[in-house]
Amino acid sequence: MIERILTTELADHQGEEIHLAGWVHRIRELGAVSFVLLRDRSGIAQLVYDGAVDFGNETVVRVTGTVEANEKAPGGFELRVTATDVLAAAASDLPIAVNQESEVGIDALLDNPIVSLRIPRVRSIFALQATIAQAFANHLRSQEFTEIKSSKLIGSGTEGGTGLFTVDYFGERVYLAQSPQFYKQAMVASGMERVFEIGAAYRAEKHDTPRHLNEYVSLDVEMGFIAGHEDLMDLEVGLLGAIFEEVQERHADTLERFGASVPSAEQMQKTPRIDHEEAKGIIADRTGKKAFEINPEGERELCSWALDEHGVEAVFVTAYPRKKRPFYTYPDGIKTKSFDLLFRGLEITTGGQRIHEYDMLLETLPKFGLTEEGLGDYCTIFKYGCPPHGGFAIGLERLTQQILGLSNVKEASLFPRDRKRVRP
Amino acid sequence: MIERILTTELADHQGEEIHLAGWVHRIRELGAVSFVLLRDRSGIAQLVYDGAVDFGNETVVRVTGTVEANEKAPGGFELRVTATDVLAAAASDLPIAVNQESEVGIDALLDNPIVSLRIPRVRSIFALQATIAQAFANHLRSQEFTEIKSSKLIGSGTEGGTGLFTVDYFGERVYLAQSPQFYKQAMVASGMERVFEIGAAYRAEKHDTPRHLNEYVSLDVEMGFIAGHEDLMDLEVGLLGAIFEEVQERHADTLERFGASVPSAEQMQKTPRIDHEEAKGIIADRTGKKAFEINPEGERELCSWALDEHGVEAVFVTAYPRKKRPFYTYPDGIKTKSFDLLFRGLEITTGGQRIHEYDMLLETLPKFGLTEEGLGDYCTIFKYGCPPHGGFAIGLERLTQQILGLSNVKEASLFPRDRKRVRP
Repeated sequence: MIERILTTELADHQGEEIHLAGWVHRIRELGAVSFVLLRDRSGIAQLVYDGAVDFGNETVVRVTGTVEANEKAPGGFELRVTATDVLAAAASDLPIAVNQESEVGIDALLDNPIVSLRIPRVRSIFALQATIAQAFANHLRSQEFTEIKSSKLIGSGTEGGTGLFTVDYFGERVYLAQSPQFYKQAMVASGMERVFEIGAAYRAEKHDTPRHLNEYVSLDVEMGFIAGHEDLMDLEVGLLGAIFEEVQERHADTLERFGASVPSAEQMQKTPRIDHEEAKGIIADRTGKKAFEINPEGERELCSWALDEHGVEAVFVTAYPRKKRPFYTYPDGIKTKSFDLLFRGLEITTGGQRIHEYDMLLETLPKFGLTEEGLGDYCTIFKYGCPPHGGFAIGLERLTQQILGLSNVKEASLFPRDRKRVRP
Repeated sequence: MIERILTTELADHQGEEIHLAGWVHRIRELGAVSFVLLRDRSGIAQLVYDGAVDFGNETVVRVTGTVEANEKAPGGFELRVTATDVLAAAASDLPIAVNQESEVGIDALLDNPIVSLRIPRVRSIFALQATIAQAFANHLRSQEFTEIKSSKLIGSGTEGGTGLFTVDYFGERVYLAQSPQFYKQAMVASGMERVFEIGAAYRAEKHDTPRHLNEYVSLDVEMGFIAGHEDLMDLEVGLLGAIFEEVQERHADTLERFGASVPSAEQMQKTPRIDHEEAKGIIADRTGKKAFEINPEGERELCSWALDEHGVEAVFVTAYPRKKRPFYTYPDGIKTKSFDLLFRGLEITTGGQRIHEYDMLLETLPKFGLTEEGLGDYCTIFKYGCPPHGGFAIGLERLTQQILGLSNVKEASLFPRDRKRVRP
């Protein structure tokens, strides 16, 4: 039986009769001969036909032929075709071209997601993104973390009611979870100690910026028996280093295509940790303007400073004032044991130690205008003994965006949800 | 520095001074000496104190001591404690006991999820479940499948509007996805060819049975360039065999605790494939009653037959009539190229080949009362060339339930959602 091989495997089959299968990417008819580029999940190969062909771009075909060397063909080999089965026809009115070297504008991409994912450049973003998620999980499993799957339908908002999408649940008004915060803390306290989750998170915010999505994938981590938030930053630089190494090893071609690179694991270990006040001082020094907040411009400035001073485009900003962090953040005087990680000018993580003592939690709630009853079962987690713990969350799309240097985070979401888009 | 070790590692540290950290599981005071069982993420160890102790069950402690052999202690070693740090106190009014050998009733478990997850037996269900998800992903990656993350907010229902939860999306009425069917087909057609997704799925059905959840985790697979639905059944038996092997290797203790076992990979390869008519005949033969439908009793009978005849408690039922399957199922006369997998008396999978030809799809829609416009962008997937493909989905909670022999699928969901429960 003749075997189907992938377009990238031609070199191993010189002189053999094989099948290729895929999509017709481009056709060049030269009268006596036609060159057809065939696209499959692995890449693109050249097919050679005698005379003209009777199919158009995007037709799905299964072809039979003999592999021949040709230094002018992509990869140095081509298939001289003897038989073609058309598996599915394709209409000729593609709304955007999928076989051009020039980039398609972002609005055209986002308005035609079903077709734009056929563009090899676009699809490669999501192959790389799958590796990020896999490396995240594998590194944490190597540290004895257990993966959890928590509910995304919640009866009340742990972090307050604003920014929540409402769901009609058999006549009851419930919400889509903004984060699995409650659940990952519950699982640490249950005795699982170290947990992670890869799941959807929802923000009903009316932002329409290149860095916001209304539905995104949150890479969530929570760890018990920590000595402080420093342990979490240690964990995160090791984790990101492992992710970057895996991306470098498996997606060097995609990085090259985007003119991108990733920091090494060694570079990540050098990520500086500066407190919030110090950060504002650095911004002021570098811009000549007093910084009242760390705004997007300030975030870019801090990463630029980290690159200059520490050789890595990442920086932890720690010790945020208590009023700027959620109620459950562990206090440290008027500040908190919390951090953000900025990477290449964008916040990709928020994290910190959490309050684990029931008494401290009950004292804290009124300061944030909250009550034990209003938080549903949240306080039960701490009532019956919970170890010191903390965690962080990384936005998968933002991390993808920052690795590849994408101008808009929506390019890093397969089917992005924003104010205007809830289809397809 | 004295190192924290896990309770299951005592044997490797005999005579050494070490730390343990965890939850006080049980206290037995015998006057001159107290024995305390300490629980951590790995298991339980015995601590020995002189005299009484001044903490209660579930207190979180970090203890220092010397490891000594004691054949009466769990694992053959115990820790003679010299110092105890209380990391968090615990209230004494636990709503359910977490340290008893006897099983807690399901209603008490489900009504107190935050506390019930402290029961080692309960927590072990979810450690095993994490392995199922990991083995699922790893096996598919070994076959060159790519993981995707699709939106759970959809503008219209591909499978009809019934059974959908509605979401208020900035004033627009949208739905929670029942399955990633549309998206995984789109990704096959995009050129990714082979994809899988682990994600939430929603069914707004008023079922209240031991086998239904309103929110569950769907293990979804879709594969291009198949010859027929047989390829998918081949893939699934290999996949389940790999999952079962991993569960056996890593969770033998949990299987033992539940009096459960898993089929071997070899057994799974023997899974029979019978068509829907033949299945009804087998049920009629074995029960002496004519079977008009394959109801839950019939599903149990078929698995019992498969065990008797083929040595495996699993059976594929194929060739469902067209009107019993979704519109996108590939027809085969008045039947379809589809299948269900029954495992230990319960349907855990629905799958099949899908219609990939645009023309056939357009001809099919009116027979199901559908229109191209009504399906939003669905038909675009096929308009521009889509290979023959198909897939299946496995309910993670149901598979967990069937492996461990749980009486109710809700026991296999961390925070189950049903008609009555949308908290915590």
